Amino acid sequence: MKQKSLFASLDELFHPESVAIVGLPQGMKTGKLFLLALQDMGFAGPIYPVNPNAETIDGLACYPDVAAIDGPVDLAIVLVGRDAGPEVVRQCAGKGVKAVVLFTAGYRESGSEKGRRMEAEMVATARAAGMRLFGPNCMGLYVPASGLSFFPGLCRKPGRLGLISHSGSLANIIGREAEKKGLAFSKAVSLGNEADVQSADLLSYFARDPETDVISAYLEGISDGRYFFDALKTAAAEKPVVLWRVGLTAEGGRAASSHTGAMAGSQRVWQGLMRQCNAVPVEGWDQWVDTMMAFYLLPPVSGRRMAIISGPGGLAVSAAESVGRQGLELAGLSENTKTRLAEHVPPTGTSLSNPVDVSLNAHMDMNIFARAAEITAADAGVDAVCVIGSGLDENTNNAYIDAMIRAQQSSGKPFLIVGIAGMPADTGPHLCGAGVPFFDTPERAMAAYARVVGYYGRRA
Amino acid sequence: MKQKSLFASLDELFHPESVAIVGLPQGMKTGKLFLLALQDMGFAGPIYPVNPNAETIDGLACYPDVAAIDGPVDLAIVLVGRDAGPEVVRQCAGKGVKAVVLFTAGYRESGSEKGRRMEAEMVATARAAGMRLFGPNCMGLYVPASGLSFFPGLCRKPGRLGLISHSGSLANIIGREAEKKGLAFSKAVSLGNEADVQSADLLSYFARDPETDVISAYLEGISDGRYFFDALKTAAAEKPVVLWRVGLTAEGGRAASSHTGAMAGSQRVWQGLMRQCNAVPVEGWDQWVDTMMAFYLLPPVSGRRMAIISGPGGLAVSAAESVGRQGLELAGLSENTKTRLAEHVPPTGTSLSNPVDVSLNAHMDMNIFARAAEITAADAGVDAVCVIGSGLDENTNNAYIDAMIRAQQSSGKPFLIVGIAGMPADTGPHLCGAGVPFFDTPERAMAAYARVVGYYGRRA
Repeated sequence: MKQKSLFASLDELFHPESVAIVGLPQGMKTGKLFLLALQDMGFAGPIYPVNPNAETIDGLACYPDVAAIDGPVDLAIVLVGRDAGPEVVRQCAGKGVKAVVLFTAGYRESGSEKGRRMEAEMVATARAAGMRLFGPNCMGLYVPASGLSFFPGLCRKPGRLGLISHSGSLANIIGREAEKKGLAFSKAVSLGNEADVQSADLLSYFARDPETDVISAYLEGISDGRYFFDALKTAAAEKPVVLWRVGLTAEGGRAASSHTGAMAGSQRVWQGLMRQCNAVPVEGWDQWVDTMMAFYLLPPVSGRRMAIISGPGGLAVSAAESVGRQGLELAGLSENTKTRLAEHVPPTGTSLSNPVDVSLNAHMDMNIFARAAEITAADAGVDAVCVIGSGLDENTNNAYIDAMIRAQQSSGKPFLIVGIAGMPADTGPHLCGAGVPFFDTPERAMAAYARVVGYYGRRA
Repeated sequence: MKQKSLFASLDELFHPESVAIVGLPQGMKTGKLFLLALQDMGFAGPIYPVNPNAETIDGLACYPDVAAIDGPVDLAIVLVGRDAGPEVVRQCAGKGVKAVVLFTAGYRESGSEKGRRMEAEMVATARAAGMRLFGPNCMGLYVPASGLSFFPGLCRKPGRLGLISHSGSLANIIGREAEKKGLAFSKAVSLGNEADVQSADLLSYFARDPETDVISAYLEGISDGRYFFDALKTAAAEKPVVLWRVGLTAEGGRAASSHTGAMAGSQRVWQGLMRQCNAVPVEGWDQWVDTMMAFYLLPPVSGRRMAIISGPGGLAVSAAESVGRQGLELAGLSENTKTRLAEHVPPTGTSLSNPVDVSLNAHMDMNIFARAAEITAADAGVDAVCVIGSGLDENTNNAYIDAMIRAQQSSGKPFLIVGIAGMPADTGPHLCGAGVPFFDTPERAMAAYARVVGYYGRRA
């Protein structure tokens, strides 16, 4: 019953019908980006700027304070100076605002006693009024389906990824980059200091959210360990949860503390808890993005028998090496598969066992790549196919991309396409947009695939 | 004396005055690329096509066999079918050719007894004549200063990187990508099966080569362990040697064997030998390229005190986390530095301790990045500076790049610039071209820097 009410109460916050922006600046300052973001995302309800020194901003009538707004306010985005924060939060509570996004910073993360006290005061005000706070020191909400965004230029298409981030900038960067990786968001939340709504609340929410299939988080600390791990275990039993946790070294912990006031943790303890919860821990930006993309685009597979098809022989070998390092298996190809491959792959400087080395000739004749991919994917002993190739110019490269998409779709098996440095930059976005994950290197492809099959294998 | 004669004998091979291409095809087939490569690189001496079925190819007079060439031949590139290899090598020996590049494949790596026997026969012929073989199953030589290349379109500018690769395709891909990373080659050698000239020979050569400052290799196996490790130890005492070794897992080992006939090794033994030799082992393409770039562009430094300046707060924290994971230190900034930073960095949502979080405002005012970088680099407690930033459009991004190059040059300290996903694609090439290494993520920057200071620290 408690879970249900938490779900309903958070769900409501993601669907506001009106937004106030308190402290919206008149000129082109950072705070203006919040207005531009909502307009850019096409927020349909009224937007109320609050600024006592302006009559209108960008054609919108301004209000001197929250109380003066002549209509209900569901969400307030607060950009005022630090010391005005508690009073604005009181006004929002008085107005019946449902959620406050506190962009305003300088509280607990500053290390000052006064900042800490003010943060606690705002939380107490909100709780007494049944109002929820995001932040302080956060960017807030990006919910394409509701027309909410925290930065101009983010993708307008709703998707199935639920994102939790202690860092507003990382939420923003992944928001901008997502489309190139085939990712789109159900809801993305920048939590900052998470003084009220915390990552565990959102894990519980996303676990039950029918619009969310994959959950991902960037975390600088954990506010309430017991609550967090219970929520994580429940969520990871339902959906993959990809977690990038920093603050597990002394250096990262100090930096996290001054960024969002988070507490450092122990790396060993963290890894143990990740295993217990069947969560998917990652380290660093590349792993984070690769892993989100793999879970988002691949079906729930647990087969470890990988076939590799490569033009460059060296990358074929390094892909096989990664198969070994990641605990995957090199699929054994049937004699029938090898016979069929021999009809298309030239005999010299190639290999028909796995990895299938189609050699430089394949880069000049896209049919070799296409047939090799189809034939190999059709082998019953193959669970997934990794193709490393390219065309030698834009036209042949586009033909290569189309062939890979067709081969994946007709086989229904997971395909992982690995790029070759120097390929046209739109290769990855094109493939990912068609649901075929694209990786920069064989090592990164195998690492991401191993996380996917590890997760679904353990969940089974 | 033996070493000296090895150096001189190999050095001669890198400076041929004439080249024969034996088996040059008439039409646009793969083999034609070798002719186009030499023409593209501006090889100044005569090029002799050998093809008994053609009178001329691309306007060059053809010869029916090597013996018929009416002038001395220093280098022969051999593209004939497998079974013709031994006879062509005999003809080359009879002609007094100094070096043969055997592109021809299908020998030891095919696993057939006949292939193995033919390979041994060619080596015996060459040794009896005092001629050297590269390969078989290789692309051969890319030596910009001599006008040699194994693929069209590679960078014409000579540089200071000596490359050894068992894979022709990887040698080719890094040859194409090098310029974007600020890298250029003294000599690059694709060795294939290394039946005669082996990686240890080239390690010994590069160690003494005054044109080579950094040595790098992609290796699928080691032909002669004792010789290799002696050569490696000697080379690494003189110059950094970056080694990407595959074939250390069962899966990679099998793939390496069918690619270049190489033997698998043990991962544990390899790591131990790397430490003993003070070589720099890497795993995978990203690490290989990042590490080559770091050694190539950075001075020989061993200071571990890293200062971080970042716009995005989350990337500042993840950079600090990587400092901890890589065994580096977060530099402590002096009070004077903090006072000076406070004159330029706005007070809210920022941090003046290390990492210096300059916040979103800095992305709108490049002066904040520039001043923060200069002031921080001037702190006597800082050994290196990592900057994570960007402009919000092309103009401001170019201003950012120029500011970083100036700040590095005026400070004389190592700078590592970390990109933010979605930056203009020419950011990296622009910075690297000016000698300032650029990395895709904080994790990769710190990992590469840690390898550089680790190497020079141990060598000291």
